[in-house]
Amino acid sequence: MEFIIARDTFLHALSRVSGFVEKKSQNNSVLSSVLLQAEGGTLRYTGTDKMLTLLGSVPATVSRPGEIAVDAGYLLNTVKSLAGDTVRCVLLDQQRLEVQCGTSNFRLVGQPASEFPVTPPLDQSRSLRIPAASLSRLLDQTLFSVASDDNRYGLNGAHFEQVSGADGSPYLRIVATDGNRLSWSQAPFSGELAIGRKSLVPRKGLAEVRRLIEGAKADVEIAFGERAAVVRLEDCTIHVRLLEADFPDYRQVLPSTFKRKAVANRVDLQEALKRVLIFAQDSSRSVKFAFTESMLTLTSRKLDAGESKEEASVDLHGEPITMGFNGRFLLDVLGVLDSTMVVLELGDTLSPCLVKSPDSGDALFVVMPVRLD
Amino acid sequence: MEFIIARDTFLHALSRVSGFVEKKSQNNSVLSSVLLQAEGGTLRYTGTDKMLTLLGSVPATVSRPGEIAVDAGYLLNTVKSLAGDTVRCVLLDQQRLEVQCGTSNFRLVGQPASEFPVTPPLDQSRSLRIPAASLSRLLDQTLFSVASDDNRYGLNGAHFEQVSGADGSPYLRIVATDGNRLSWSQAPFSGELAIGRKSLVPRKGLAEVRRLIEGAKADVEIAFGERAAVVRLEDCTIHVRLLEADFPDYRQVLPSTFKRKAVANRVDLQEALKRVLIFAQDSSRSVKFAFTESMLTLTSRKLDAGESKEEASVDLHGEPITMGFNGRFLLDVLGVLDSTMVVLELGDTLSPCLVKSPDSGDALFVVMPVRLD
Repeated sequence: MEFIIARDTFLHALSRVSGFVEKKSQNNSVLSSVLLQAEGGTLRYTGTDKMLTLLGSVPATVSRPGEIAVDAGYLLNTVKSLAGDTVRCVLLDQQRLEVQCGTSNFRLVGQPASEFPVTPPLDQSRSLRIPAASLSRLLDQTLFSVASDDNRYGLNGAHFEQVSGADGSPYLRIVATDGNRLSWSQAPFSGELAIGRKSLVPRKGLAEVRRLIEGAKADVEIAFGERAAVVRLEDCTIHVRLLEADFPDYRQVLPSTFKRKAVANRVDLQEALKRVLIFAQDSSRSVKFAFTESMLTLTSRKLDAGESKEEASVDLHGEPITMGFNGRFLLDVLGVLDSTMVVLELGDTLSPCLVKSPDSGDALFVVMPVRLD
Repeated sequence: MEFIIARDTFLHALSRVSGFVEKKSQNNSVLSSVLLQAEGGTLRYTGTDKMLTLLGSVPATVSRPGEIAVDAGYLLNTVKSLAGDTVRCVLLDQQRLEVQCGTSNFRLVGQPASEFPVTPPLDQSRSLRIPAASLSRLLDQTLFSVASDDNRYGLNGAHFEQVSGADGSPYLRIVATDGNRLSWSQAPFSGELAIGRKSLVPRKGLAEVRRLIEGAKADVEIAFGERAAVVRLEDCTIHVRLLEADFPDYRQVLPSTFKRKAVANRVDLQEALKRVLIFAQDSSRSVKFAFTESMLTLTSRKLDAGESKEEASVDLHGEPITMGFNGRFLLDVLGVLDSTMVVLELGDTLSPCLVKSPDSGDALFVVMPVRLD
């Protein structure tokens, strides 16, 4: 194998792949490597931890085709350190990859490409297309609600499904919950959402997709198979193993009626909440919300540290009520909305609270209250 | 106690003091608190971990004088969160400090000022004055050589002494070593350097002084007492307990002659070293330096990972030589010089290497070589 490649192109590819390889590998595991395959005018690169795989390709001048797996971290650091514009890579004997640029000469210990795990192919003929900016919003509005508790396996991912928008056209809806809060967010798509057996995409896959589409302008393609889903960008594909679990019937927990409705300025409420959270107990992040007709008073108290009180204007329809929330959970929701005002639909003291933007039905959030001491 | 203070002024003071208080305090220790003392038109603030103390003052409108110790971290977070321009602080009963700003109301649990440790006064009549920029350079060029190994108590600080400059005028010289490398750096001062019994300033004190004088334009005053030194800036004073140990006679290890002298471009050498360090063994950071008449070849090798080779132009006077260095140590030196070229004075394979700028005698660095395998 021998190829010449632009240093910045190579660096961009290796930076991308670094989130997909195993970090602290024992025994020089091949899973901490990136697989390089040079052929034609292309360098293909693959990184995987077996659950999550990135496959990408970049242009390169290949004078001798070939393939090798080398440690992704060392190769990234090597290419990052280079000062020249182009890099020459040559596969030497004993699986060593020579990386050469200007007066710099590196030889990295590699492993045969045959030891690198094969990513099972996936039929991508039936796929949906969605603008990258839409998918970014869907992920931003749901990722924080995915359970981080590994014991709740069926909640360690986000559920993908097709729903009908207000105009009857097909929408992709992503739903996540950790049992104490729930988010769903939806956006129109073209093409076809053909779910296989499962449609639960694990947290790490969602986070890496979110990272990769940051700032992307183009459409993203998504296809589901029996055991995996693929997300395709312009020049790379993410292959995600789906969780072998069923997502709960989330519609059951969505309150259909409410007794009280409070409308507040979103940023004012966000700022007030940030302040009272300083003295919320570490474990529960519990904040007391006292709603009156035109005023919301937030209070918190932390043993041996202090207490705080904040006021924010609200417009309350319904009887005054005092209830507790995990302030962090509400803050997460306020941070992923962009409307000026925010609507809280409330029931009784221990009923779920529904949070949404007054002017868009494309995202909905449910936060369970906490008992006040 | 009751005072009104500008929010930004208060925040600046509390940010400054945060490096001086104990971090993870058990049992709500008073050492994680800042002492606030309001009187006249001034709020005095003190933070200490008993080894290192910051005393500062800022203007405030005091309507009722008083004092209280409150947790520095909580108070910093509280004031940082406030949106208004001015903050009102009132000492309530049971040692609670009310912090009020706009619609925000905080009550922090405090401790009586009487429980706060008293910083012993220090005679500051005999002190030296040095521009903050000079002191910054002295600290930048020596701090990295202070031993981080706590077992080498006498090397866990930097030694201050007075020397004569080339023109016979008094210079402050700061010296540090960890046994494998040594730095000294000197600059002219006015006033008097009156050392007491000891002149060994501990690493943390040096680092906090460096942090505080960042960007300062004014002169800094330094005075030594029997057990402590004080460093005074415009509006605050740092009180440092000196190490009760003797600094070794460092002049003995400074080589007085050399057999070889190599001159290289500093930035070129720095960049080449950074690259070969990627494949230097973690423990020794060992890099092989092969000097020939006009070329320096740097090589490193890391088991199971790879190897690297770099070339840099040098102008060598004397016989070619190959020797090993901790590449990190040389990189530290190259990073605190600002000259275009750098001079390495070499003896034999295991003799100390002297590094300096060709055009200034105000700083000198010694790096011990390492044995090559």
